[in-house]
Order: sequence, then C-alpha cells, then structure tokens
Amino acid sequence: MKATVYYAPGDVRVENVPDPTIQQPTDAIVRITHACVCGSDLWFYRGEEEWQPGWRTGHEWMGIVEEVGSDVRTLKKGDRVLAPFAFSDGSCEFCHKGIQTSCVHGGFWEGSTNDGGQAQAIRSPLADGTLVVIPKAVENDDDLLTAILPLTDVMSTGHHAAISAGVRTGSTVAVIGDGAVGLCGVLAAKRLGAERIIILGRHESRLEIARRVGATDVVSSRGEEAIAAVQEMTQGGAESVLECVGSESAMATAIGIARPGGAIGYVGVPHGSGHSFNLGRLFMNNITLRGGAAPARTYIPELLTDTVAGKLDASAVLDLTVDLDSVPRGYAAMDSREAIKVMVRP
Amino acid sequence: MKATVYYAPGDVRVENVPDPTIQQPTDAIVRITHACVCGSDLWFYRGEEEWQPGWRTGHEWMGIVEEVGSDVRTLKKGDRVLAPFAFSDGSCEFCHKGIQTSCVHGGFWEGSTNDGGQAQAIRSPLADGTLVVIPKAVENDDDLLTAILPLTDVMSTGHHAAISAGVRTGSTVAVIGDGAVGLCGVLAAKRLGAERIIILGRHESRLEIARRVGATDVVSSRGEEAIAAVQEMTQGGAESVLECVGSESAMATAIGIARPGGAIGYVGVPHGSGHSFNLGRLFMNNITLRGGAAPARTYIPELLTDTVAGKLDASAVLDLTVDLDSVPRGYAAMDSREAIKVMVRP
Repeated sequence: MKATVYYAPGDVRVENVPDPTIQQPTDAIVRITHACVCGSDLWFYRGEEEWQPGWRTGHEWMGIVEEVGSDVRTLKKGDRVLAPFAFSDGSCEFCHKGIQTSCVHGGFWEGSTNDGGQAQAIRSPLADGTLVVIPKAVENDDDLLTAILPLTDVMSTGHHAAISAGVRTGSTVAVIGDGAVGLCGVLAAKRLGAERIIILGRHESRLEIARRVGATDVVSSRGEEAIAAVQEMTQGGAESVLECVGSESAMATAIGIARPGGAIGYVGVPHGSGHSFNLGRLFMNNITLRGGAAPARTYIPELLTDTVAGKLDASAVLDLTVDLDSVPRGYAAMDSREAIKVMVRP
Repeated sequence: MKATVYYAPGDVRVENVPDPTIQQPTDAIVRITHACVCGSDLWFYRGEEEWQPGWRTGHEWMGIVEEVGSDVRTLKKGDRVLAPFAFSDGSCEFCHKGIQTSCVHGGFWEGSTNDGGQAQAIRSPLADGTLVVIPKAVENDDDLLTAILPLTDVMSTGHHAAISAGVRTGSTVAVIGDGAVGLCGVLAAKRLGAERIIILGRHESRLEIARRVGATDVVSSRGEEAIAAVQEMTQGGAESVLECVGSESAMATAIGIARPGGAIGYVGVPHGSGHSFNLGRLFMNNITLRGGAAPARTYIPELLTDTVAGKLDASAVLDLTVDLDSVPRGYAAMDSREAIKVMVRP
C-alpha cells in the first residue's frame, strides 16, 4: 500500500510500504477514507521537532474496518470509524478519568513506532478502546463525513481549550490563533454558550471564517498591542482565554489578557524555551492554567451526536482537498498558509 | 507609636512613627494585639525583593478596633478583629467572585503606601470589606486567639493550595515545603478528607510537626531524587500537589510529581527566572496549575468557625513569641530557620 513517510524538513514522500497486518489480538486494520494534515505536523515539517527519516505521518483519520483481531468485541469488518489522535485501551485509570491521552497502554499515531493516517490503510492498536463507529444512517453522506473528520483532532482540541478555560453560558472568551484549532475554539465557545468571542489572528480570510462561525470581535494586532486592545475591550481581561497556537508569544498574550480569577485553556503543543512564561501574573491574579493534549476520545461521542444532528459543523476549517499522492503538496500549502487545513482522500 | 520599619536586607528596626489616623470614612484604626513574621517577609529581608528604606513591615495581624470612620457600618470600637493579608472593598466584581486579592480598590499591608502589622496600631482602609470580627465568646481565650492568628495568612494560604489542587475525600496529596504554609497545607488537606498526605521537606523537627498534624508519609530528599521517590510511592504521581515554597526548584518538583489529570495548587510567591518551568510535562499530562495569592477573606469565616469549634488548630506553626521590640530578633530566627514562624505580641 501507499503511505506518507517523513524524510527531512520540507520533505515528506508518498511511497509503497508493506500492508499493515494484525499484530495483537486487540488490533484492527482500517482502510482509510479521509485524513488530514495537522498544524502540529508543521512542527516536524519545519524542522522544529526531532524526527527521523522513515517515520510515518498523519494522526487524523477515518475509515472502514477491514479486519479485526480475535479480542476485538465492539467492531466488525465494514464498520465506518473515526479515530482520535491518540489510541487508548479504554480501561485504565486515566481512560476512566477521561484523559485517554495519558492511557498507560496508549500512544499516538505517526512517528517512530506506529502507523500514520496519511496512507491507504493503518493498523490500530487497542481498537475497542480507540475507534468510534459512525452511525450507519449517515455513513454515506459525504458532507457530513467531512464535518465529522475534524473531530479526530482539531474540533476536539478546540473543545478541550474551551472546557479547560471554563467557557459557559454568557462567558466572555478570547481565542488566540486563527488556525484550524483556533477556529474550532470559536465553534466550541459558541456551542457552550459564550456571549462574546474575541478572536486574535492576522489572516483576514481566516478571521472572516471566525466571524461566520461565531466570533463577535476581531483583534489583528500582536504582542503588547493586542494585549492592550483586549484589556480595553473587556475592561480588565477575558474570563476564558483559549490558547490555540503553542508558541511562547501566544502564551504570553494569553497570560496578558486573562482576567483575574479567569482561566487559560491551552492546547497548542508548547514550543520554545519557556523563558518568557509570566508565572507572576498568573499568581497575582489567580488565573488558572489548564489544558494539554485533548482527550478527543472523551469528547468525540457528544461532538459526533451534535454534528450528526446538524448542530455543529467544523468543515469550514478544511479548505483544500488532495489525493494521497498529493500529500506533499498539502504540506506545502499549509506551510505557506495557502490552506488552513488539508483534507486527504486516499 | 512603635512600628517595624525596613532599612536594608537583614536590617529591620522598631522605631517611633506617627500614630495612625482615620484618613478615609471607610477606615478603621486597630490596636494590634497579635502579629506574625511571615516566610514571605524573608524575601525582602534577604534582599530578594526590591524594597525601599522606610517601608513598614507586617501583613499578618489581629487586634482591637480603636476608632472607625464615618462610613464604617459593621465594626465598632472594642471589636476584636482579624485581618486577611490583603484589604478589599467587599463589593467589586472580584470580591463578589471570592478573589479579594484582586479587589479593584484593595491592596496589601506593608510596603510603600500602607501601614504594617508589626506595630502597635494600624490604619485599615476599607474596614467593612476587610476585617472579620472574632466572636465575643472566645475573644479572651489566649490559646484560641493563637490558633486563629494563622488564618490571617498561612492557614488560609495552605487551604487555598489544597482547594486549588482539588483535594477532596480520599485524595492522595503531596505537599512541597515544611515551612508554615506547607504545614498548614497538610492541615488543610487533612481537613478536606485527604487519605494520604506526603510531605516533602528537609527539617526533621518540622517534619515531625507535619506527621502530628496529618502527614502520612515523609520525603526528605530533593530534586530528581524526591521526584522519583514520590513517583514510586504513588505509582505515577500525586493527584493533588501543594506547592508551598515559591522557588523554581519547588515548582519543578511539583510539576515532576503531579499525576496525569491532577492539579498543582501553588501558593508560594513565584521567585526566580522561570527558565526551568516545564510546561511540556503539564501539557502532555493534562495537569492543571491553579492558585496564587490566597483570597484569605473568602476562607476566614469557615476556617474561623472550625477553629472556634476546636476542629482546626494551626497554632503549631507558631514556635517562637517575641515582643514588639524584639521583632528584628524574630526575623533573624526565621532567617536562620531557628523558628518556623514568629508571633509578635505588641
């Protein structure tokens, strides 16, 4: 089969690799129908993470079960499934607590040891704990499948940011970042009842999408200027801040615009030295810092229900579709910001 | 009257200053009966905070109301009162949310503009919002007054750490620091129903007090060794970590011993460069960081009720008593760790 393989910064290739096979009785083999390139894939693509040549890529995918191991109980050949960006056993302490990203037997797609989703097929470990079946009634609705696809990562991640930041009915929310996760953060805040949603970003076309999906205000300046703008608009800061980037400057902005007693929900993978982390401002203002790798497996069922019911549609973040052979072009388009997020149809 | 005044690192002096007078109609003048030297006073005493000669010292105090301004409604001459370490109006957005340390009209005792509590008397701004009256029935019980005194700061701060770290019935808790706040953190965790309380400290006599007030386990190593010890004892970290020191190394330990999905309640005033703040571990494990300057004014009523009822006694942290003239000796005793915490009886 074909799969995408990392070679070097700026160099991913689609090439022939061995077909995946069942290795553990808890495995499933899934033929991939939809996948994405993620903003977090750009970290290794830009050489900002230690990656080795030969590692598989892609952690956002959906597909159809081809084969299951002898211990798999909840899935069968032909099921259309959705995967969170981490696999998990569904039975350990942390899975029971709803943080499957810390599963003691779990792990993450792509990288050194596991298959990636930017491929024709994939081996899923711990299939029962990991995969979510898409209702039969909608499994041939192409538009709906496109709306479901972001739940694998970015929509669940935006939701995690909003939950972590304590967004509730009537909240004033600031969302940092106009990438796919930031836009999903706006969607999530809106869904949770936020009254005012301020998006901080720099790209007019993306900010326009943000407005369309729920942002009430836009701040397109940066750094101290952006902090001053939000402080003034909110007369003292936003109760809930969604940090959806992961850079030092984004975290500095988040800390600068959070209201005393408020919370920052942060979901961008932290990058940078951490030197500018202003713990003092958090301390003096009792601002909570909460978040991390989103437990998408916890959130997918409720977000899937709302998506199927037409109450949630994150498909606006997918603005370029490529076939499997064109995945390298998809990376380049995201790297250059030509595309917000690329959908791959193998 | 006499008051303690800062001159230079290692140099505080008790000297004659003008008597305090009512300056605003919301002020009260209080004759001080009890005060403390706080571990956080050691920061300026050791030259680790920017202090100016002439600033007053002391932010933990109790006393008897001598005079009230014309707008004061809830207090009268003769009331015995307790002050949280910050004053607050009791009526702004943040006071209503229970974070009086962020009161828009509030402030902190001692320092550049306000009186300090290590004195014979003090002017309390915003007296109605700030001061808590001690029940008449117990106001002449010396032992009980000593048990009440730590509510002004360290006991409320330890409680804030425990609340921020999500301590509840059955919790496994790690408390970093065997100073007064750490010991109060143990008391608070015990009071909230923690099942296992691990204290991390280095001073045998203080650890003995920790055991007496509720610690079930002691770790007296430091750094990576302490992290490994707690990780092993708890098989993966403590759900609730109380960071009661404020140094970079204490925060690094807190981050290292927190369990995935758990929370760090931090109440030590952050000191240091912040270079070693491991946001990545918090992120990957969805560990919440919550805390800050304790809203003692929120906690005092319930802690006072329990103290008066004999259910809470934090007096064990007060192991040296001095008169006002001997306040400099009190600082020296805390600086050398001869005393955990000094009570001042003007």
